[in-house]
Order: sequence, then C-alpha cells, then structure tokens
Amino acid sequence: MTEPQHTPHPLEETETMKLRMELGPRSYDIVLKRGSLAGAGRLANLGRKVLVLSDTGVPSQYVQTIAQQCGQPFPFIVEQGEDSKSVKTWQQILTHMLEHGFERGDAVASVGGGVVGDLGGFVAAAYMRGISFFQFPTTTLSQVDSSIGGKVAINLAGTKNTIGAFHQPELVVVDPDTLATLPPRHYANGLAEALKTGLIGNSDLFNIFEKEDVDANIERILYLCLEYKKGVVERDETEQGERKLLNFGHTIGHGIEAAGGLSGLLHGESVALGMLPMIESRTLLRRTKAILRKLHLPLSYNYPAEKVLSYITSDKKRHGDSYTIIKVKKPGMAYLEDVTFEELKMLVQGDTE
Amino acid sequence: MTEPQHTPHPLEETETMKLRMELGPRSYDIVLKRGSLAGAGRLANLGRKVLVLSDTGVPSQYVQTIAQQCGQPFPFIVEQGEDSKSVKTWQQILTHMLEHGFERGDAVASVGGGVVGDLGGFVAAAYMRGISFFQFPTTTLSQVDSSIGGKVAINLAGTKNTIGAFHQPELVVVDPDTLATLPPRHYANGLAEALKTGLIGNSDLFNIFEKEDVDANIERILYLCLEYKKGVVERDETEQGERKLLNFGHTIGHGIEAAGGLSGLLHGESVALGMLPMIESRTLLRRTKAILRKLHLPLSYNYPAEKVLSYITSDKKRHGDSYTIIKVKKPGMAYLEDVTFEELKMLVQGDTE
Repeated sequence: MTEPQHTPHPLEETETMKLRMELGPRSYDIVLKRGSLAGAGRLANLGRKVLVLSDTGVPSQYVQTIAQQCGQPFPFIVEQGEDSKSVKTWQQILTHMLEHGFERGDAVASVGGGVVGDLGGFVAAAYMRGISFFQFPTTTLSQVDSSIGGKVAINLAGTKNTIGAFHQPELVVVDPDTLATLPPRHYANGLAEALKTGLIGNSDLFNIFEKEDVDANIERILYLCLEYKKGVVERDETEQGERKLLNFGHTIGHGIEAAGGLSGLLHGESVALGMLPMIESRTLLRRTKAILRKLHLPLSYNYPAEKVLSYITSDKKRHGDSYTIIKVKKPGMAYLEDVTFEELKMLVQGDTE
Repeated sequence: MTEPQHTPHPLEETETMKLRMELGPRSYDIVLKRGSLAGAGRLANLGRKVLVLSDTGVPSQYVQTIAQQCGQPFPFIVEQGEDSKSVKTWQQILTHMLEHGFERGDAVASVGGGVVGDLGGFVAAAYMRGISFFQFPTTTLSQVDSSIGGKVAINLAGTKNTIGAFHQPELVVVDPDTLATLPPRHYANGLAEALKTGLIGNSDLFNIFEKEDVDANIERILYLCLEYKKGVVERDETEQGERKLLNFGHTIGHGIEAAGGLSGLLHGESVALGMLPMIESRTLLRRTKAILRKLHLPLSYNYPAEKVLSYITSDKKRHGDSYTIIKVKKPGMAYLEDVTFEELKMLVQGDTE
C-alpha cells in the first residue's frame, strides 16, 4: 500500500451528522462522524454473534476496532478485489456461519469498501432468509455511495452484480478518519462517484469539486452525497424508475471496468470515463474533464471499443434490444434515455477518439 | 412411479376459486381451478423469456403445457429430491439464464412440488436482485402450503432451507387435476400439511379429515388451507410472530426428515410425526392418530432420538439455548412455547416410545 498523499481534514472535534433513511420497517440511521468506528457499539446492537467481514486491503486496526465491540466476533478476511464477490466465497462464509451456530438474531458487519459491503450484504440477505447487517465503510467509494441503499450482490460468470438482493443495513457508520489510510488512487476512485452525484443531482456539490479544496471539504462532500442518495432510495427503493439515475456513467463504465479485468481501471475510474460520453453540453464536458484532472482521475482508456461493447451487452441495464442510459445536460439535470445498440456504439466510439 | 390409488374428484365442470394475497406492492392472485394449467397464459404474462423449472418426478405433460404458453420457454429439469436444492444447482440455473440473456423483465416458473418451488423461487429472488416468479404447484404438498407465502430457499451443509429469501410469486395457479398423476404416498404426504392447518387454525378442516371422504373434498381442503395461510402471511409476511405457528410439527419433523436422509420419510410424513408430541390433549392425539391411519401416513419412525435431536440443534427455530416450539390444545388453538434442550429431548423421546 502506498502512502496517502491527500491531506486529512485538520479538525480536532467534529459534530455528528445523522441522516435517517426512511423506508418504513426497513428504516435506518446513517451516522457520519470522525472517530465513530470506535463508538459503533453504542450505536448498534453488536452484543451477539457478528460475522465481521473485511478484506486484505483494509487496515486490520478497523476490523479489530469493530470486533472488540461485538459480543462474539467472528472475523472473516477475504482477498481484496472483485474476485471475492464469487458464489464460492459467499458459500464459504455462509457455511462458516452455519458451523459456528449463527442464528436468526445474529448479524453480519462489513468493514471496508464496496466489495465487502456487497458480499457481506448478500450473505446477510440470504442467511436464514435475512439477518441483521451493518455497514462500516472505510473507503471514499463506499462512504459516498455503496454502503447505503441496500443493493447487495455477487458476480457470476464474469458479469458484475448478477446475483443479489435488496437488503437494507440496520445502521451505516461513516468514519471519515479511515480515509487517512486509503491509498491516493482509491481515495480519488470514490470521489468519481461523488462527482457523479454532483452531476446528476446537486450543483452545489459540483461547485465544490470545481472551485474548492476537495480534501478540506471532504465531510461536506460525503454528507451531500449521502443526503442525495437517501432521497432517491426513499422514493424508489427497488429501482423501478428514478433510482436508475444513480447509474449515470455505469453502462459504459461497467464495460470499461470489465474490459480491463483485475489489472485494469477501478470502478470509480471507469465510471468517470463512462460519464463523459453522456454529458450533453460541451461546456460541461470541458468543466468535468478539468475536475477529473484536478482529482488525478483518468481521462481516457486503451481498450478497443468492441471489447467494451461486448461486456455492455450482458449488462442488466438492457431490456430487449434497447439500452437505458442516463444523460446530463447541466449539474443537477439528468434524464433517462432509451438508445439502440448502434447509438450506444457511437457513444462508446466517440469516447475513445 | 406407482399408480395412484386415490379417486380423483368426479366433477365435470368446477368454479374458479380465487384468493388475493394482500401484501401491498407484492400482492398476487391464487387461482384454484381444475384444468387451470392449460389457461395459465391468460392469467399470467408469460410472453417473455421464462425459465420453466421442473424435476424428473413431474410428468412432462405439465411442463409442456406451461412451456407452450410462454413467449420464449427455457425448460430446465433437475433431479427429483431435496439434493437439487443445492448451491450448485442454483448456480447452474442462474448461469444458464445469464448465458441465454435473461433480463430484469423476464421470469421463472416452477412446475412441480416444493423442491422446484423453493429452488426456482430463490433463483428468481437472486437473479439481478429479483425477477418475476410464477408457481404452478402439482403436488398436494405444494398446493396446500409451499407454493404461497414467498418462502424460498436452498439447503447448505446438510441443513434445510438455510439460504433463501422472502420472494413472493406474481401468481399461483393451483390445478387439482394434476393430483391424479401423483403417487399415493406423495398425495398423502401433502395431506399431512393440510391436517396441520386443521390442527393449528381451522376446526372445520380438521372435521373434514375426521368425518368425511378426503378425496371427494380435496378442493375444499385445498381452499381452506390456502385461505388460512393467506391470512397468516398477510399479517406476518416475514415470520416475526404469528407465521411461526405454520411451523407446527416442523421442529422435530425436520429432525426426523434429516435423520432418514434421502431414503427416509418425506417432508409431510415427517411433519405428521413431529406434530404428535406437540399435541397437548390425549383425546386430540388419539383422534389425530386415527386420521393419520386413514390417510395411510406413518405413526412412528425407527431412528434413535439422539440422531433426530442432533439434526434439530442446527435448526433455524432455535435462539440461544432455547427452542421455540408450537403446541396445539384443540383444533384451531395453537400457541408458541419456548423450551430448553432438555424439555425438547423429552418430547422427542416420548414420541419414540
């Protein structure tokens, strides 16, 4: 792991920011506070058997911090990376829980990024038809986006998130202090999803990226992202309509991510590249590229368009012969559009020119 | 397959009985009508890709009847028996669907008994986080019980239904004509669950079993079972309380079923035996045993109590050191009770005396 180059926010004491995801019987709190991992046991009922899931890329101190607040912690550390979101690993964890007598009243806690969040969530969703689940995201990507909303999944046959569920967590604890140990590339990777939020839903957030010091405003960025996504999920929990807007940049982005494989671009990096062809205004495209440069995110990729397209055709966002994509005219103004394969192909090819 | 010995109901034309499961956005119809399989396409939107799941024990005519009403049918026939409720088979089906381009708007239809209903339901629940699911139950067991209510699951590490979801079907079509091809042992197997319903929830239903010709009243039995379960599921979809009553006979029953393995007793037979120690009145116990004899269901089993108990200890109905069991005082009067392992042991041992 390389040393982080971004400067952590120099606050000594910060307020607790709390959001309430209102989903009827599935409602839960999202707590945003520096140092909150150490107090998680006061916020959540961890006094039971807890499968504490993490990966080899997450500093062990965070796993220990959570484990020591659990009644009976069962740490389970998987390999870092998308390959751990497999049926095989999922089955191993479920078997481990069964062998250790986990019951309906016990819980799963994910400590780390999107991979352990998605994997742990689908473990919790399926074990005995659903048990308690806690999210302790420690990456920018999971803190701004993947830890809330209840989308959990694993991969199958090379296709991302094909198997999964909507299983809401009981609590999400976002501790921005954990970002201090995140490698710079992963830190920027998550900011790409935050920039996405600015583009589709919040011009104030876009302005922070364009005009202000991102590191100094990281808590405000996290808060605005969580607040926006919370509203969307509340209105459309299972992605019948509006929630599809959150997939801005993801149709082509998933193709780019899959084309690169394990040694390729990260999820946020791919999404950033996937957003560019979907921006309808040349001015906004120029401004967005300037932000990507500022964040040290890539502005191009080296895979043939055909390869990217071949991965897109197995994407979940297709229906019949058309593809639902999301376009943005100006920050906060996004809309859905159905395009043919030929139209999508032109968008992908334009991006690689 | 042996020839059925029960006499099918000699009706020429019957009315359609329809129940509506009221679960808000997850509401659906349960249609009970002779010959309804042939008209399923008029009741359900099958004009899409449909994974038609069945097993080697189901007459192929039923699979064909459904498949020919689908826009693009993909029949998938698994081996008959609990072993097909495995992660491996589940993954095979999901991979098959992915390879054939199944999308979010496509569907899964289960044609057969509880095994394909449970398996197909969990395939539909997990594929792309949930797609449409249809139940076409063709066994007594699935027609009276397992096809409605949304409990879907597969087995793991020798433990039944450890991995699953609550995923409601979009429509359930119960065609009693299919029971004519069911081997007598399987026909009686499902009646055990129907008798369970009479014991926990409906004294009229119990009286039919005790005093009337079961075959001649099979539609009324099916209807009363579905009607009772519908009410319970509507009030307690995810089994927080009342729905646990449906597990009457299942704590010890699962242990008996597991102890016998593949060559042992069937699910309903095991549940019938699991009910006996839970009946609080000696008179009712005697009356119930008389019904089991009348239905040609077993009244005893040959496994050591220790073996049955060892399987019960990994059961989902345990919490901490106690077990939630269901007892019945008189037909329609059931209640939950927490017992210790020692108390449960005495109940199991009493039953084998």
